[in-house]
Amino acid sequence: MSSTSKLQPVLDRIDADFDNCLERLFALLRIKSISADPGFAGDCKVAADHLAADIATLNFKAEVRPTAGHPAIVAKSNSNTGSRPHVLFYGHYDVQPVDPLNLWNRPPFEPEVVTHADGRKIIVARGAEDDKGQLMTFVEACRAWVSVTGSLPLDVTILIEGEEEVGSKNFVPFLEQNKKDFAADVALVCDTGMWDPNTPAITTSLRGLVYEEVVIKAANRDLHSGIFGGGARNPIRVLTRILGVLQDDNGHITIPGFYDGVKDLPPEILAQWKNLNLTPDTFLKPIGLSIPAGEKDRLLIEQVSSRPTCDINGIIGGYTGEGSKTVIAAQASAKVSFRLVEGQDPLKIRAAFRAFVKERVPKDCSAEFIDHAYAPAIALDWTMKPLTAAKQALTDEWNKEALLIGSGASIPIVADFKKTLGLDTVLVGFGLDDDNIHSPNEKYDLKSFHKGIRSWARILAALAEMPR
Amino acid sequence: MSSTSKLQPVLDRIDADFDNCLERLFALLRIKSISADPGFAGDCKVAADHLAADIATLNFKAEVRPTAGHPAIVAKSNSNTGSRPHVLFYGHYDVQPVDPLNLWNRPPFEPEVVTHADGRKIIVARGAEDDKGQLMTFVEACRAWVSVTGSLPLDVTILIEGEEEVGSKNFVPFLEQNKKDFAADVALVCDTGMWDPNTPAITTSLRGLVYEEVVIKAANRDLHSGIFGGGARNPIRVLTRILGVLQDDNGHITIPGFYDGVKDLPPEILAQWKNLNLTPDTFLKPIGLSIPAGEKDRLLIEQVSSRPTCDINGIIGGYTGEGSKTVIAAQASAKVSFRLVEGQDPLKIRAAFRAFVKERVPKDCSAEFIDHAYAPAIALDWTMKPLTAAKQALTDEWNKEALLIGSGASIPIVADFKKTLGLDTVLVGFGLDDDNIHSPNEKYDLKSFHKGIRSWARILAALAEMPR
Repeated sequence: MSSTSKLQPVLDRIDADFDNCLERLFALLRIKSISADPGFAGDCKVAADHLAADIATLNFKAEVRPTAGHPAIVAKSNSNTGSRPHVLFYGHYDVQPVDPLNLWNRPPFEPEVVTHADGRKIIVARGAEDDKGQLMTFVEACRAWVSVTGSLPLDVTILIEGEEEVGSKNFVPFLEQNKKDFAADVALVCDTGMWDPNTPAITTSLRGLVYEEVVIKAANRDLHSGIFGGGARNPIRVLTRILGVLQDDNGHITIPGFYDGVKDLPPEILAQWKNLNLTPDTFLKPIGLSIPAGEKDRLLIEQVSSRPTCDINGIIGGYTGEGSKTVIAAQASAKVSFRLVEGQDPLKIRAAFRAFVKERVPKDCSAEFIDHAYAPAIALDWTMKPLTAAKQALTDEWNKEALLIGSGASIPIVADFKKTLGLDTVLVGFGLDDDNIHSPNEKYDLKSFHKGIRSWARILAALAEMPR
Repeated sequence: MSSTSKLQPVLDRIDADFDNCLERLFALLRIKSISADPGFAGDCKVAADHLAADIATLNFKAEVRPTAGHPAIVAKSNSNTGSRPHVLFYGHYDVQPVDPLNLWNRPPFEPEVVTHADGRKIIVARGAEDDKGQLMTFVEACRAWVSVTGSLPLDVTILIEGEEEVGSKNFVPFLEQNKKDFAADVALVCDTGMWDPNTPAITTSLRGLVYEEVVIKAANRDLHSGIFGGGARNPIRVLTRILGVLQDDNGHITIPGFYDGVKDLPPEILAQWKNLNLTPDTFLKPIGLSIPAGEKDRLLIEQVSSRPTCDINGIIGGYTGEGSKTVIAAQASAKVSFRLVEGQDPLKIRAAFRAFVKERVPKDCSAEFIDHAYAPAIALDWTMKPLTAAKQALTDEWNKEALLIGSGASIPIVADFKKTLGLDTVLVGFGLDDDNIHSPNEKYDLKSFHKGIRSWARILAALAEMPR
């Protein structure tokens, strides 16, 4: 009996067991696995142990493996034969910090299903989408297959890391040192979005990322602005003068060489995108804005998916409490990130940014840099067989043609899979633009979670049929 | 017997009692009377009660009086006759916040005398100088007079407020409503500095202050920079673009009309100042800097005392914790202050700043402003009799000619005394540039405290002899 013919009982099982799927997701969401904050390192370990134990119940040999940072989970199905198509599934159990906490409507680690203003049922918690909700769609699909058929329809390795949100610095060396464990035909990643709540999508291009922190140091201590104001260098002024000229009045980034190698979209893609109706009204109005902030000579859809960007993600210096303090700070700092597109070299961009800053720092001040992440942009082959198979499975589940789309986000691991393991990746996910990932009140649509599980059940069947 | 002939026993008494003077100062320094932070309102009340009780022991009728904010202390000597010269002494018991706490070498509210690197004995604590140490020099001088002679040599009213560090917003109405309580011939304020550790000074000009907080609001929530980056307005970018152009490449402030009414120094004063040897080497090198940061066509001494300035005292927005977060914040804010000189109207400057910001805010963002303080600059009459008397007393105590100097700092209450009570003020203080006021490791030289008390004892005698 082919995998496809076994599919309907598997899908029925998912529907019947859905309340339990949700309870298992909630158990994972309750763990405060914030990778950026060393204070939560213990919680990261708890999340890894918890997930490995759960996956082990699906007839996997599941191990929590140390890295130089938070641990990773490596799990291989006991039903692997070595002669069937083999998929390597990747997700991450770590989540973003929760601040500003006061903007959450409920505690971020106490998940609940609530009704959205427009009637949609949504799961609210930090990590509800990114990436605990998404990775559990795959785990639950495996559970349903094992539960109904006693095994999986193809060979499966599951790899889950704990440092995606902080740049995977320790995970990539781990991948290199253990690559024999990750032999497969294709990688599957569930960390991307749909086109809209009814239209599934496979992401075929991803922006790269350079994430820098810059610290400007001036006097050797905080100063009183009455005594020293006017004569002593103010590091916040130095910092704002530099950051303030990173973009010109037309929205172009002013760092010399920043756009080197950036290509225009092929005219046929641009024509397609023009029809997608991504406008200020559909895209910016829901978030309270109305004017595209990027390059004035580009479409909004280009600004957010095919053009490189520069954003200041955080800034701090001086007195930031209530009231006033007439202080000149000793230092000020900012976190600055660049989304990169195909053709841009992250290390060149990083060097150009650092030079841009250093040139503008007065001689009696200094600039120090902290490297948080760098990764090139990714463009996947739109015609590879696993992608075509997954596209058909998604189209079947959602009863609507799955789109191949570009994402403005960065998933650096995709480049590492290609470079280290020689694997292409299929990026399937069920996130929506209004999921508030990395923000207060992160959510995942209940429909995304439910039909996401069903989608993976179908994709596993479709990939099992694929010739090796 | 004239007041002057009684002086020597009073000075001797101060020397003999100095250890107790210090212990009383320490008791005051232990109280965490931070006015900016509502969490310390109780401590402010404790400080007021403590000081009033102490002053009452000097044969004063001392009351803690409510204001719309932190309470004030009003104390009148029971030896007041109504027929002698009458001084109104002003100080403040509130202190600045202590952050960043990790830069303090010891807990800020556990005062101790330590030895400075260069051998000076210093009192280290928040408020050691500003203004607890300074106001206690006056209180201890009164104590010595009462202890030795049974009374004070002239009529004295003491007025101590608890909101100087947050702009005295509630204190000024209190002053107006109770002005009958403050009839006097002259006001004395101890909240300024010496020229150097061996040269006493009376401050005859003070810069004014406009202190604004600006909040830039963009999207209605924090956004993921992968999804929205490039298309959605970043409020940190908006803010840094505006703050970055407040000063041009020559150090001039670019707000239209900012310099309206500002006069150049009289040539004879400028010539005097050139001789004072305030250079990058003497003034900036001790704080780790070397290049004057203000208007390039002005002397450093002008930049810090006679020219108006603009400083960014604090800035915050987005993710400022450890590590990285790819967020576009919903808002960002900065605290911006201007030191003003004679001829500048604080309300006009405030309006011009707000207009400057609003003009540069994109239409789909907003700017909100919080007014923290505004006060005009002050120029006192260099020739008034109490000032001349005080100058001679200081010269006698320090055995070095007291200088009349301009201060870059702002003490708005001086304008309020003139406007509300019709009183001129004599500004005598014993602070030093390296006192770290408003900074970690605030200190007051033990010599400043000791000779400061002796100086006030002499000034009281000198003013008592002054014809009414």
